[in-house]
Amino acid sequence: MTLPPAAKPVATGHVPPVATSADQAPAVHASRGREPLALHADRFFDPDSAVRSTARALYEDVAGLPIISPHGHVEPALLALNDPFPEPAALLLTPDHYIFRMLYSQGISMESLGIPTRDGTPVESDPRKAWQRFASHYHLFRGTPTGIWLDHELHELFGVRVKLNGDTADVIYDQIAERLASPEYRPRALFERFNIEVLATTDAASDDLAHHATLRADGLGSRVVPTFRPDAVLRVAQPAWRAALTSLESIIGRTIPNCASFVQVLAERRRFFASMGATATDHAVVDPYTAWCDAETLEHIFARALAGQATTADQRQFEAHMLMEMARLSTEDGLVMQLHPGSLRDHHEHVVRRFGPDKGADIPVATEYTRNLQALLNAYGAHPAFTLVLFTLDETTYARELAPIAGHYPAVRLGPPWWFHDSIDGMKRFRSQVTETAGLWNTTGFIDDTRAFCSIPARHDLARRMDANFLAQLVARHQIDMSDARVMARALAYDLARSTYRFGGSASAN
Amino acid sequence: MTLPPAAKPVATGHVPPVATSADQAPAVHASRGREPLALHADRFFDPDSAVRSTARALYEDVAGLPIISPHGHVEPALLALNDPFPEPAALLLTPDHYIFRMLYSQGISMESLGIPTRDGTPVESDPRKAWQRFASHYHLFRGTPTGIWLDHELHELFGVRVKLNGDTADVIYDQIAERLASPEYRPRALFERFNIEVLATTDAASDDLAHHATLRADGLGSRVVPTFRPDAVLRVAQPAWRAALTSLESIIGRTIPNCASFVQVLAERRRFFASMGATATDHAVVDPYTAWCDAETLEHIFARALAGQATTADQRQFEAHMLMEMARLSTEDGLVMQLHPGSLRDHHEHVVRRFGPDKGADIPVATEYTRNLQALLNAYGAHPAFTLVLFTLDETTYARELAPIAGHYPAVRLGPPWWFHDSIDGMKRFRSQVTETAGLWNTTGFIDDTRAFCSIPARHDLARRMDANFLAQLVARHQIDMSDARVMARALAYDLARSTYRFGGSASAN
Amino acid sequence: MTLPPAAKPVATGHVPPVATSADQAPAVHASRGREPLALHADRFFDPDSAVRSTARALYEDVAGLPIISPHGHVEPALLALNDPFPEPAALLLTPDHYIFRMLYSQGISMESLGIPTRDGTPVESDPRKAWQRFASHYHLFRGTPTGIWLDHELHELFGVRVKLNGDTADVIYDQIAERLASPEYRPRALFERFNIEVLATTDAASDDLAHHATLRADGLGSRVVPTFRPDAVLRVAQPAWRAALTSLESIIGRTIPNCASFVQVLAERRRFFASMGATATDHAVVDPYTAWCDAETLEHIFARALAGQATTADQRQFEAHMLMEMARLSTEDGLVMQLHPGSLRDHHEHVVRRFGPDKGADIPVATEYTRNLQALLNAYGAHPAFTLVLFTLDETTYARELAPIAGHYPAVRLGPPWWFHDSIDGMKRFRSQVTETAGLWNTTGFIDDTRAFCSIPARHDLARRMDANFLAQLVARHQIDMSDARVMARALAYDLARSTYRFGGSASAN
Repeated sequence: MTLPPAAKPVATGHVPPVATSADQAPAVHASRGREPLALHADRFFDPDSAVRSTARALYEDVAGLPIISPHGHVEPALLALNDPFPEPAALLLTPDHYIFRMLYSQGISMESLGIPTRDGTPVESDPRKAWQRFASHYHLFRGTPTGIWLDHELHELFGVRVKLNGDTADVIYDQIAERLASPEYRPRALFERFNIEVLATTDAASDDLAHHATLRADGLGSRVVPTFRPDAVLRVAQPAWRAALTSLESIIGRTIPNCASFVQVLAERRRFFASMGATATDHAVVDPYTAWCDAETLEHIFARALAGQATTADQRQFEAHMLMEMARLSTEDGLVMQLHPGSLRDHHEHVVRRFGPDKGADIPVATEYTRNLQALLNAYGAHPAFTLVLFTLDETTYARELAPIAGHYPAVRLGPPWWFHDSIDGMKRFRSQVTETAGLWNTTGFIDDTRAFCSIPARHDLARRMDANFLAQLVARHQIDMSDARVMARALAYDLARSTYRFGGSASAN
Repeated sequence: MTLPPAAKPVATGHVPPVATSADQAPAVHASRGREPLALHADRFFDPDSAVRSTARALYEDVAGLPIISPHGHVEPALLALNDPFPEPAALLLTPDHYIFRMLYSQGISMESLGIPTRDGTPVESDPRKAWQRFASHYHLFRGTPTGIWLDHELHELFGVRVKLNGDTADVIYDQIAERLASPEYRPRALFERFNIEVLATTDAASDDLAHHATLRADGLGSRVVPTFRPDAVLRVAQPAWRAALTSLESIIGRTIPNCASFVQVLAERRRFFASMGATATDHAVVDPYTAWCDAETLEHIFARALAGQATTADQRQFEAHMLMEMARLSTEDGLVMQLHPGSLRDHHEHVVRRFGPDKGADIPVATEYTRNLQALLNAYGAHPAFTLVLFTLDETTYARELAPIAGHYPAVRLGPPWWFHDSIDGMKRFRSQVTETAGLWNTTGFIDDTRAFCSIPARHDLARRMDANFLAQLVARHQIDMSDARVMARALAYDLARSTYRFGGSASAN
Repeated sequence: MTLPPAAKPVATGHVPPVATSADQAPAVHASRGREPLALHADRFFDPDSAVRSTARALYEDVAGLPIISPHGHVEPALLALNDPFPEPAALLLTPDHYIFRMLYSQGISMESLGIPTRDGTPVESDPRKAWQRFASHYHLFRGTPTGIWLDHELHELFGVRVKLNGDTADVIYDQIAERLASPEYRPRALFERFNIEVLATTDAASDDLAHHATLRADGLGSRVVPTFRPDAVLRVAQPAWRAALTSLESIIGRTIPNCASFVQVLAERRRFFASMGATATDHAVVDPYTAWCDAETLEHIFARALAGQATTADQRQFEAHMLMEMARLSTEDGLVMQLHPGSLRDHHEHVVRRFGPDKGADIPVATEYTRNLQALLNAYGAHPAFTLVLFTLDETTYARELAPIAGHYPAVRLGPPWWFHDSIDGMKRFRSQVTETAGLWNTTGFIDDTRAFCSIPARHDLARRMDANFLAQLVARHQIDMSDARVMARALAYDLARSTYRFGGSASAN
């Protein structure tokens, strides 16, 4: 603030009455009636006119390209069964931890939002009341990607033209509910309307892929594909491991007495997934530690695991070895290996006990790639049949470790800015910190990783805008020309994800 | 540089004479006479016209709001005694380690600047000479927030209209000295002129708060409040611990024989601080490690500490437990808990021996929050009466750890970009890396943390400008609209600090 | 993308045929004929008109200043012998790991590029074919600094006016080859044309500096100077250590029986380097750990090393101590100490075995400075004769550790954004994260660190543009004025490197 000139006498009466000034504040987050909701045609582009006009031109080139979604958490049952979506809260609020974690962080209980519990605690049963609580706190999402995606869904998918708030909650609820009742809003109709070329789901090693079989029977087999994610059977120190192994034994119809057999079964399951259309595996670990372990030690670990006595150290050694095995199998069956470390899951024990996993309490930790991945990269990082897609929640590794690794090892591609970083500024940081060392072609282009089916177009639209804006900045600074930029925009929006995940059939489309 | 076209013969004569070109350099940092000092009305805003005009509008809304300063190091004696400030060097130079560390880093000795020693080494006794040395090296502060604050103070508070340099040192010294002699420049007059609504000081657990009693008697009790900072009595392995404990025993008038008694005394002192207006506690640690420790072990550690034999490991365990206790007590007495880890204090032993602590040789270290805070957050992170404000000097934790933690746990609010990061680009990085995950309402808004009283308006002015600019960028990119932005600007400038620190009386004003 | 309004029936026919849309993609990276290659006069500047015009003015001031290159890997033989450069691939492609690592990362084998092997594996012997492979994949360098430097060299040095691609490879090869045959393209002619005032090479402790002797005899002794880099003789646990020590013994003509003698020899060699014009030493370590070690332990380590039995722990302790000794010797002989930690060399064992070191498989790791450097800084960080230049590959340390350290210790200067970070956005991050805490005068200004002689002007041009742009942003935001900016631009382009490395003779030119 500008102080009054010192020459003038200090007028203490000039100071606003302290209490008054604060108390006069309008109840700013209370309902504010009906304000228009509009999506600006140039939204998210830089205001500079040279950048904006170029960004718009690049965006318009790619806005209509089909969506490649090779990594996500949409339930295959959704598209296999094609049941109508339930009412708005069950569609948009209760399954999306991006949304209710923010409400929870501001003191709105998850019970009051109708999040189902697994310990029997009763929760709000009236979805309209839960929706009202959400709407009344919608201001919390200002400036967040979740807010952007929601506004996009409300505006584009449901035709909403007023901002969501406490006053408009009911009318918007009704409007969405009405749409959901029509056949045009069945999952498969939306799948076409969203222009999704391929969508990969995430499936346990023991999954029977029955829903994928249905989809194949219905002619959608090449467009909805499974992903092999064996995490549960690799975490030998977890209480849930035995049950996961039993499921695996059940699906293959034989017992798994030792580690050698275990690896054979995984290889077999991978081939089954591939036969059902899978082109990739997916692996979550805390540290991406990789190391071969000798067979004798492995069998001892496996025996301890069967006896329920595997330690955390055992699991570390076991996972490190199994990542090596997964890479080895990828060189044989051609499945792209995805590795996304660095999330300390279930940080808040009370939330996990009451609501289960994936409820907004997974907190990232610092992650090391250079030393941890050295064994795997030395073994397979230059294998012509191998592709390894690396994700991170630790942005400090973009420029320090990941871009140099991807800028050397032929097998490595960098996944997109992920999870918390799937955002406007997150994307800017990623491109800024990765491109100069790794270039564009050592990245996968955009991947959404969502469990909210209706947010897929919003997420890809945002990414296509941000990538267009990034390239427009390079054009405006005369780093690349428009001819280069058009190729690069298409690569980021479509080509790179398609070729990295081998949806065109070949591993080397680019 | 552009090379001459290769077709032309290489004219070696074209090469500038090597030595000459460098030696012709003007003595650029020497005195440069009288250049005007002006504060541009649009300073610090982006040059883009759309952003700038919006930023200006948002800034003008909040520029006149009262200042909330809930965390800082202004001495309560300053306002209690209301003595005139001494001459300019003692006001601006010698107490401010932000300034003399920079001069020291360029070879100007602290002795020559008149920084008092505690080992008896003589120092410059003529403040005008120290001021001259400072002024002659003022160019070092170009592009730094310290330079911005100083220019603001010189221009706004003291009416200086020429740039400080070796030539203008004397005239500016005289101008400031003259102002300081007038009653309008007494601390309390400035307190009103600065439009400070609340100012919190930082006080040891053993402090008698006598100056605060004076302020209360003079009707300033609700506007100058203490903060409970028990660091000294928690560092059981430090040589100074015994003296700190003795002070604590002295103020309560009884001995503290064991840890159980120690915790009771801390609870008692906290209640006394609260009765004197405190709304918060403050805790500095290197690592924010938290863990319960059993009573028996605690008593052994305390006994070793009393015997002068506590180890570093003892202190780590003791501090980890006491942070849990502090959180527990906060749920009872309602004091907001502030935690600011990550500074390795007293890095330069020679400086500490000669000049004492807080002399510019505290160097940050990498800091881990996710695992270290898990125990505390699991115990109290969802307690409705608890607020935990987290600070950091490790910006890598903004997006990776702090924003996800604040975006889940209801008790957590993120403090502002702190210390070295209380700067233009530091604020940009903070907002960019925190907002998309944690939103605005899981942050505290701006807090200054200064020990330089006269810099408070400059610091808040800079922050209000930068927050206005941040929001203007969102508006210009059509992420939020102007109606949203006005509410958000006010929240960052005033509402959030006031509600987080419970100055309105309620813990949930927002 | 914008979804069609929901009110309209979903037209599945609107979805582009999936396979077609992708397969229609033009073979975008294939040869694209002759597109013009131009260097825009305002390249790399922000598009905002206020920033751009100011940046241009600042850049024009410094564009013609001589180049100070105090740290790099140009072979002294190049200038001593002044032989013509060989054909284009041997000049631009095969010696530059910045280039072939990117090609390798996309599956182009190093053998096919003609990179020489040390295991006898045959490689492409036709440089024109290697060049063709490089040119056909030149799109990989879009958006990278390597691409910028290459375009600059092609355009400015060789007069190329079409973009390099598969179609233009041959004609450009011929154009470069023709130029290389002319006397104007001999190394010394280019040295003058590049306007290099001083160039430092990097030389082993055992180097006889014969080429430098030649250069001195030819009157270039003050312009091409050696740098003392004793890494090889400090790594006592490496298999190559004994041979390195033998070389050292050979050059001094006596055996080195113990550590005391070893330190004396190093001191002697340093004095010899200084007598040959060296003003600096250079030290690469993984962790910048420093600590004194007692003489007895040192002798035991040295004895184990002589016996080929030194351990990794021995080496860690030895290197930590020897960094202390190097600093101590710097206070005596005045050589500036350079320390660049954090690269895990030879990450890819296969590449090292076949091609040797420095082949693009050095991957950075997280680096800690605050604790590791404490011993050295406490001993010598305030010594008036000592200068320590710190480099990093871990950008997280810029704001957290390096700027606070440089902003306190008088001896410390921060080197430029280094290696992977010698790039447009790398420079932006460096200035943004360092300047506000350390100011400008605790940095060295730009330093290129290249082994590609012809890239030196391109690298300095890029840096001068980016520094001008950084300062122009400060001017446009009214943080500094144009008078300040001109001084600062010159400091970054020339003055700071010259004074830090004491090329003017004095340690305190600024």
